[in-house]
Amino acid sequence: MSIFMAELIGTMLLILLGDGVVANVALKNSKGSNSGWIVITTGWALAVAIPALMFGTYSGAHFNPALTVALAAIGSIPWSVVPEYFAGEFLGGFLGAVLVFIMYYDQFAATEDKASKLGVFATGPMTRNTAINFIAEVIGTFALVFGILLLGANKMAPGLNTLCVGGLIFVIGLSLGGPTGYAINPARDLSPRIAHAILPIPDKGDSDWGYAWIPVVAPIVGGLIGAFLYQAII
Amino acid sequence: MSIFMAELIGTMLLILLGDGVVANVALKNSKGSNSGWIVITTGWALAVAIPALMFGTYSGAHFNPALTVALAAIGSIPWSVVPEYFAGEFLGGFLGAVLVFIMYYDQFAATEDKASKLGVFATGPMTRNTAINFIAEVIGTFALVFGILLLGANKMAPGLNTLCVGGLIFVIGLSLGGPTGYAINPARDLSPRIAHAILPIPDKGDSDWGYAWIPVVAPIVGGLIGAFLYQAII
Amino acid sequence: MSIFMAELIGTMLLILLGDGVVANVALKNSKGSNSGWIVITTGWALAVAIPALMFGTYSGAHFNPALTVALAAIGSIPWSVVPEYFAGEFLGGFLGAVLVFIMYYDQFAATEDKASKLGVFATGPMTRNTAINFIAEVIGTFALVFGILLLGANKMAPGLNTLCVGGLIFVIGLSLGGPTGYAINPARDLSPRIAHAILPIPDKGDSDWGYAWIPVVAPIVGGLIGAFLYQAII
Amino acid sequence: MSIFMAELIGTMLLILLGDGVVANVALKNSKGSNSGWIVITTGWALAVAIPALMFGTYSGAHFNPALTVALAAIGSIPWSVVPEYFAGEFLGGFLGAVLVFIMYYDQFAATEDKASKLGVFATGPMTRNTAINFIAEVIGTFALVFGILLLGANKMAPGLNTLCVGGLIFVIGLSLGGPTGYAINPARDLSPRIAHAILPIPDKGDSDWGYAWIPVVAPIVGGLIGAFLYQAII
Repeated sequence: MSIFMAELIGTMLLILLGDGVVANVALKNSKGSNSGWIVITTGWALAVAIPALMFGTYSGAHFNPALTVALAAIGSIPWSVVPEYFAGEFLGGFLGAVLVFIMYYDQFAATEDKASKLGVFATGPMTRNTAINFIAEVIGTFALVFGILLLGANKMAPGLNTLCVGGLIFVIGLSLGGPTGYAINPARDLSPRIAHAILPIPDKGDSDWGYAWIPVVAPIVGGLIGAFLYQAII
Repeated sequence: MSIFMAELIGTMLLILLGDGVVANVALKNSKGSNSGWIVITTGWALAVAIPALMFGTYSGAHFNPALTVALAAIGSIPWSVVPEYFAGEFLGGFLGAVLVFIMYYDQFAATEDKASKLGVFATGPMTRNTAINFIAEVIGTFALVFGILLLGANKMAPGLNTLCVGGLIFVIGLSLGGPTGYAINPARDLSPRIAHAILPIPDKGDSDWGYAWIPVVAPIVGGLIGAFLYQAII
Repeated sequence: MSIFMAELIGTMLLILLGDGVVANVALKNSKGSNSGWIVITTGWALAVAIPALMFGTYSGAHFNPALTVALAAIGSIPWSVVPEYFAGEFLGGFLGAVLVFIMYYDQFAATEDKASKLGVFATGPMTRNTAINFIAEVIGTFALVFGILLLGANKMAPGLNTLCVGGLIFVIGLSLGGPTGYAINPARDLSPRIAHAILPIPDKGDSDWGYAWIPVVAPIVGGLIGAFLYQAII
Repeated sequence: MSIFMAELIGTMLLILLGDGVVANVALKNSKGSNSGWIVITTGWALAVAIPALMFGTYSGAHFNPALTVALAAIGSIPWSVVPEYFAGEFLGGFLGAVLVFIMYYDQFAATEDKASKLGVFATGPMTRNTAINFIAEVIGTFALVFGILLLGANKMAPGLNTLCVGGLIFVIGLSLGGPTGYAINPARDLSPRIAHAILPIPDKGDSDWGYAWIPVVAPIVGGLIGAFLYQAII
């Protein structure tokens, strides 16, 4: 399987499952309506970990341009393959969002609140504060990339390392997701936001493009900090 | 142990534990009444994973006709053993439902809402929309079978693979269970629905046979798509 | 370390952690007051699994007379060591309950409801129905002992088997705990009930001795059924 | 990597993630506001386990002066390295608290309750009762250190042992955290409390220095009891 195919299907599943859990909790008339933060964060953790265990041997299972850039920056992968990763990640994220739209169509139709509908696809801050929102996404993605690299430097039984990455994403969500909803991944935020803008979601609002650059740029900054700190201390 | 015996007892435990967690949450006068979606989804995930770890070496622990058909379709098992699998799966599902009825008899008696009583045994959509309900079950079972096959292609420490299948079912429930309650398994829905129709449940309603074909047919379709996509990309 | 010592300290920790989580959730003025069934069941699952991982190499980590009897009945352990197991299990359970009483003294004092205070120590049915309460405990302990034996027959990475036993107890609680609160262990119910009767708990009620025989006798019956079924099919 | 560096960054991450989850749940206007005890305890368990898996090979991943003292007392580490551990642990705890303050600045500003703001950084008892609060922290840290030592004496697949320590912390929180909020670690309580006193938190209250000695002294006592009991029975 090519890197493109692995990243495409893996990221599609990531967003199907990740945006799916938000749809289940945030929209009305769903089995999981209002089931809370533990459902959201468990869902996102497994939305990363399970596809990563499925595709890890084919592409390393990035599913995240911020991780791809960070790994290229410290020489773990060559820059020449970055476009192939990006193509799979961003396109896969879009396709996953389309599947969530189809599956949860009736729930989108039953929900009045426009912010909840956008929230299925894209993150948004609880309080708009550019500097702190940016820092929050930097810290979250720093923890993600730094954690993945250090976990990878430890000897674990086969498969356990990827499960621990799932645990890392779980705790980032539980602990650092409060202010901005932890995008920590440009493809997780930008591609579904484009889907939100394009898809005929019933009675939708705008796609909040004013905020859209933060969950793209800040994760790349945070990932680079994590990668360089890793390189500095190892 | 024969395949029949392993699938029979395994599926019986699956439904005892899976329908059991719904009974605990959805019925009145139970320790877990109204304890929410996290309890439901954790219960179902472990209801599959633990029996699968018990019976995996004897039958592969399908417990699911959609998985059995998908594996036969790509040649992982011969078609000749499919009837033996089906017999164990559908009969086991019925027996598990009988045990839940006995254990939770007082809770069934204490609950007025007929839909809640049916919901212990069989899935039902939040919004009746044949096309989208069908698609939802197709997507859920696609993720299940495609995921099981790709997880199985990875090297993991003994036992971890089956735990990851539990994680896969967990996230399917958390993320994709909102619209229809994720049957993703004909034996999980049809056999307990028959039990609901037959058993002397206090003040029960009808068994919603109009919907019953969707959680039988759609999982088989979704499973076949998952298996063929797996075969195409590997 | 002797079997007695391992079972004594292990069962003490089991009850400290298990009765502790009930105290945290069921009593007033505690950090975890009213935090729900997911907290109770997660707590009990880990209350078994973590001490079992600590003491498994010394005694097999039964912590449960119903398991001890079942293993003796199928010849896994000699009957001659059963008294040593029993001594550790019942005494350890009592000591754990004493520790919970001390730690949560202020919470016991702050709680008016006498049933909640007894519920920290001993199980009780939601509906009093001797036959069904008995059957519920039989089914729960059948699943426990049958599951432990079949899990043990599978090859898993070292340590994973015991974690799966924790998962088994988790799902028994989630799914089968609704009617009676899943004692599934005579030492878990009888020893803390004795502690409830003896200890100077502020404004306590009676210890419900009329029900006390069910969580002692039914688990032994259920465990024997599980062990003999295992022996019959393997 | 030096022991100091590993303990510094590890404890910084521990407190970033641990205090972070409390901020997310306890403060207003956060995605996880009021999401309950299961979120708090899951967050803290992973806040220890994931950094421990990252830094275990470099320093043993104590992140806790009570564990460091206990290991020195039974000769597992020489007393001469204790100051290096302490420096990393207490300084790292402070830095983690600073990061939480920055990330959750808007949430601190949106929250009126001063006790909630202090509660992000430092533990406090539900009922002030010096003897019982002290005993609660002794029992919790006894379970922690005794558990870590006995878990370490068992053979497990690489990486699983540390995950089990995470499970141990999870259950200590679920079961023993009710009366005092389970500090069980002087660096987890004292360093963030100092941060609370120094940082310009909007409209903050006092730092409750009258209670501060208990989560420092009691964990050391409890850890020593755990270590000596371990030594006595092994």
